[in-house]
Amino acid sequence: MLRHVVLFTWSEDATEEQRATVAAKLGELPGIIPQIKSYVMGKDAGVSPGTVDFALVADFDSAEDFLTYRNHPAHQAVITEHINPILAGRSAIQYTWQG
Amino acid sequence: MLRHVVLFTWSEDATEEQRATVAAKLGELPGIIPQIKSYVMGKDAGVSPGTVDFALVADFDSAEDFLTYRNHPAHQAVITEHINPILAGRSAIQYTWQG
Repeated sequence: MLRHVVLFTWSEDATEEQRATVAAKLGELPGIIPQIKSYVMGKDAGVSPGTVDFALVADFDSAEDFLTYRNHPAHQAVITEHINPILAGRSAIQYTWQG
Repeated sequence: MLRHVVLFTWSEDATEEQRATVAAKLGELPGIIPQIKSYVMGKDAGVSPGTVDFALVADFDSAEDFLTYRNHPAHQAVITEHINPILAGRSAIQYTWQG
């Protein structure tokens, strides 16, 4: 499988409502984009210092399926309308694994 | 479960051997630290621009188990001897999920 991991740091003035809306809107995507095989996200649990704010781990059957997700209008809408307005930092990777 | 995600960017002069050694040495840890329930890592597949070099996703039953792993001498040895010498950037998070 191809695993997509993305870590987000939110701007300091991002409200709890804005942060929660990102999770809620992303959470709708597995019902819209069938190429998503697994979609696990969460906010930092506060157990270790120096961490970012929010993470998403998503699995796909292939790189092609990941790209379909990446470019999907519903995904792009979440990025444009909800993520980018509160985004302070982002780090991402895709890697293959035996899942 | 508590999921620990860490993304690494290696220095430009990091050799393939150094990068591979990090993966090999980390791969020994599940056999040494029983608190590790799942341990999936990989290097960037090159399917999308702007990504980091290497990722690790690890699952633990609790925050206490994660901290045992974080502080374990065998883990700290990999960080000191193999990761830090080629480390250019690091981003991490721990979050709870229903796994």
